[in-house]
Amino acid sequence: MAFKRSSLSLAQIAQEIDAELIGDPDYSLNGLASLEIATASQLSFLSDKKYQSALAETCAGAVILAQFFDSENLKNQLIVENPYVAYAKVSALFATRPSASLNIHPTAVVSKRARLGKNVSVGANCVIEDDVVLEDGCEVLAGTFIGARSVIGGASLLYPNVTIYHDIKIGQNCIIHGGTVVGSDGFGFAPTDDGWLKIQQLGGVRIGNNVEIGSNTSIDRGALTDTIIEDGVIIDNQVHLAHNVKIGARTAIAGRCAIAGSTTIGARCTMGGCVAINGHIEIVDDVHLNGATVVTKSIKEPGVYSSGTLMQDVKQWRKTAVRVSQLEEWVARIKKLEEQLAD
Amino acid sequence: MAFKRSSLSLAQIAQEIDAELIGDPDYSLNGLASLEIATASQLSFLSDKKYQSALAETCAGAVILAQFFDSENLKNQLIVENPYVAYAKVSALFATRPSASLNIHPTAVVSKRARLGKNVSVGANCVIEDDVVLEDGCEVLAGTFIGARSVIGGASLLYPNVTIYHDIKIGQNCIIHGGTVVGSDGFGFAPTDDGWLKIQQLGGVRIGNNVEIGSNTSIDRGALTDTIIEDGVIIDNQVHLAHNVKIGARTAIAGRCAIAGSTTIGARCTMGGCVAINGHIEIVDDVHLNGATVVTKSIKEPGVYSSGTLMQDVKQWRKTAVRVSQLEEWVARIKKLEEQLAD
Amino acid sequence: MAFKRSSLSLAQIAQEIDAELIGDPDYSLNGLASLEIATASQLSFLSDKKYQSALAETCAGAVILAQFFDSENLKNQLIVENPYVAYAKVSALFATRPSASLNIHPTAVVSKRARLGKNVSVGANCVIEDDVVLEDGCEVLAGTFIGARSVIGGASLLYPNVTIYHDIKIGQNCIIHGGTVVGSDGFGFAPTDDGWLKIQQLGGVRIGNNVEIGSNTSIDRGALTDTIIEDGVIIDNQVHLAHNVKIGARTAIAGRCAIAGSTTIGARCTMGGCVAINGHIEIVDDVHLNGATVVTKSIKEPGVYSSGTLMQDVKQWRKTAVRVSQLEEWVARIKKLEEQLAD
Repeated sequence: MAFKRSSLSLAQIAQEIDAELIGDPDYSLNGLASLEIATASQLSFLSDKKYQSALAETCAGAVILAQFFDSENLKNQLIVENPYVAYAKVSALFATRPSASLNIHPTAVVSKRARLGKNVSVGANCVIEDDVVLEDGCEVLAGTFIGARSVIGGASLLYPNVTIYHDIKIGQNCIIHGGTVVGSDGFGFAPTDDGWLKIQQLGGVRIGNNVEIGSNTSIDRGALTDTIIEDGVIIDNQVHLAHNVKIGARTAIAGRCAIAGSTTIGARCTMGGCVAINGHIEIVDDVHLNGATVVTKSIKEPGVYSSGTLMQDVKQWRKTAVRVSQLEEWVARIKKLEEQLAD
Repeated sequence: MAFKRSSLSLAQIAQEIDAELIGDPDYSLNGLASLEIATASQLSFLSDKKYQSALAETCAGAVILAQFFDSENLKNQLIVENPYVAYAKVSALFATRPSASLNIHPTAVVSKRARLGKNVSVGANCVIEDDVVLEDGCEVLAGTFIGARSVIGGASLLYPNVTIYHDIKIGQNCIIHGGTVVGSDGFGFAPTDDGWLKIQQLGGVRIGNNVEIGSNTSIDRGALTDTIIEDGVIIDNQVHLAHNVKIGARTAIAGRCAIAGSTTIGARCTMGGCVAINGHIEIVDDVHLNGATVVTKSIKEPGVYSSGTLMQDVKQWRKTAVRVSQLEEWVARIKKLEEQLAD
Repeated sequence: MAFKRSSLSLAQIAQEIDAELIGDPDYSLNGLASLEIATASQLSFLSDKKYQSALAETCAGAVILAQFFDSENLKNQLIVENPYVAYAKVSALFATRPSASLNIHPTAVVSKRARLGKNVSVGANCVIEDDVVLEDGCEVLAGTFIGARSVIGGASLLYPNVTIYHDIKIGQNCIIHGGTVVGSDGFGFAPTDDGWLKIQQLGGVRIGNNVEIGSNTSIDRGALTDTIIEDGVIIDNQVHLAHNVKIGARTAIAGRCAIAGSTTIGARCTMGGCVAINGHIEIVDDVHLNGATVVTKSIKEPGVYSSGTLMQDVKQWRKTAVRVSQLEEWVARIKKLEEQLAD
């Protein structure tokens, strides 16, 4: 991209990430790149020893490392305990997102009854309804809607075209990406002779602090009580959380996961992409679900879980799939063989 | 949430749900909660006998029941035939959504050629294009787009940031949640030596009465004729309906289902979450698909269907998955054993 | 729909699709329909021989065919080499989408620093930020957001309520449907003792020419370098492409596919709906993945691949699913039988 990032000296970066500096403190860097493609004006990092061979050949102007690496071409080094965490910190120094406007765009429609803190930004064509609270430092980008009585915690960032329904509570330092909907009605209907009768969803959604939610994700409001997402949870794109789901602190949910109603997920869990979890079940803390796992009952022990079959060439797969369908029959034939041999 | 709901007397509620009232007709209630957490100012309900033990200990001010329950703490009771349906009706009495504005917000961009019925609400920054019809009592919330010549039936509700393309017909009493798109192009392309050639999608989408559609759902317009959703269908979040799909009346589709092009689904079917259905197939009435089922061919008999494997600890799963891939080989070995024993 | 399409003569259509005309050159046609339902004022086509029986009974005013068909009722015929491609071309002649406004709607918020080409349309309530480039003939429909420094190539079409983040490059003749988000942050976090630490996503998204993207799709920006979609790729609704995914030219991705981070897909691949692909793998050119396939490792040979089990009646399925979980045990029992027989 054509955007010119500003430059930082090696000394400035060392200070930000609390690193030991080896080399020229005044060396100027204007970006971050992988070892393979970094240029002399860019910083790089080595966080995984299996990429160590790339170090000797990198053209990076400086590298973040866990320990000194003796090399002709590596004059500037920043030594830290955890290079991956240092990379995360440094990424913020080179971020390219336009800075907050710190004003209310004249085209934004903000209710007189909304309460806005200090240094709040509200973008073009946003709609902020009655009794909304935007705490200090909130940034609400263009086209985002926030319904009545909802509260957005301090320093939270809502990207464009987000939809927050009424009576939603979002904590501090949260990030919500474009197209995401928080507070749509849970899927609750009573069957009657005249068809489905809607059950109004009277609960809200409560999201803790330091939560990030990707784009086009849907989080339903609760039926009677709130849907709950605890502090430090990270959620990727196109995740579907049904009514009254509860997600424990620091759980990570990758793209396209779906969790049905009233299910409780523990803390520090991780889910690969496309995981599907049944409703009304419980998953304890520290459970790790591989991508595309289908979970139909509660998980009571921490661990790693998976479901599904391996991909095959379609000709082989057709045979395999038929054999799977016949398994009950083949098991009976094994049992019969065992009986014959036992005779 | 901080919002103060208004109060209703037990007698008022009894009248609304046609219940036999036992207790104090003037008893005042201001909300609805489960038996476990309801307070003296809240109404609760028992719709499933397995929760009957909670009755004796509930603090609810009143409870909706199928039959009288003799208990010290349960002075106020509303006796009805179907408590779950009564709960659905009562939920509407305590709904918290801000009431309709009944006006056209000055920032809405409404074509002079659009025709709006009585008591229509159009929210801030909505865009209503030429020759759109909004029938009586329609409520279109902020940021929603309705394309040329589309018709929204009476008393329908479109939540914020919905996108309705041109030439779409939506019936009466429908609800469409935020971020949903109706009428995007079906995925139709002709392969050529120069790549994919787009086939313009000339059909529309026809949605019946009393249909609810969740958030971030996509319903494509038809290729030549319309995509059709019949009366009383309920659709959850992030559902994908491809071009020329037809959904029969009162079918229920849970979150994240996907139905490929030209497939016809019967009436009164139900789908759990994450069901995937192939294109160009037919599913008869009264078919129930468990969550995450993959349907690759037509279903000709009503019933309950499922696919997929059970979740296991990842170490076990790895072995299972390999064995599944080898099934053809193991079947051959069983056959050989049978031959040997037959000798 | 009530919209009256304009009429074209058979001669005009023959010229557009380079067809041999049999019949009345002045015959007037005002629409396109399948053989079964076309009326005397509509054009139809036969692209698949298995529908040939419908020809003798069609009421279509004219039919596009690969070769002459001798029939009483088929006076007007357009003979072409590839009727399906001719159908795609003709579909554009009868498209019903309102034509481009060719102006900037007064409610659009367009930065003074944006650069707009000739014949650009910007719809109501769009937001175009600083240094955006909209090349000649771009059409941006209502409510769409384009972030700073992003470039939209000539003649591209963005439907309503699309969200394009900052520093995104989209090529020429692209189409992006409503609710789609391009450039949301990749899901990158470093684990620390204090929880997940966000890694700023410094890359962008680069989309080639002639790319179509469906509704409510999410395409994340790259971590350090760009996420890349090459020329002629077609992507359906609700697809999730994670950071640094690379999609080769002319690959087709059906609805609800998900591709995890840093995976590279070759050219001319096709994916059925709901395919899930793991991160950090490579798939070569000309790979075809059946719907709902889960891909966990690289694919090095062109071909057709599949995974998953067949749907069954739920009673059978329960038995099958248990047997699959026990496969390791049944394999052991087969081995034991073999040993016994070998004795």
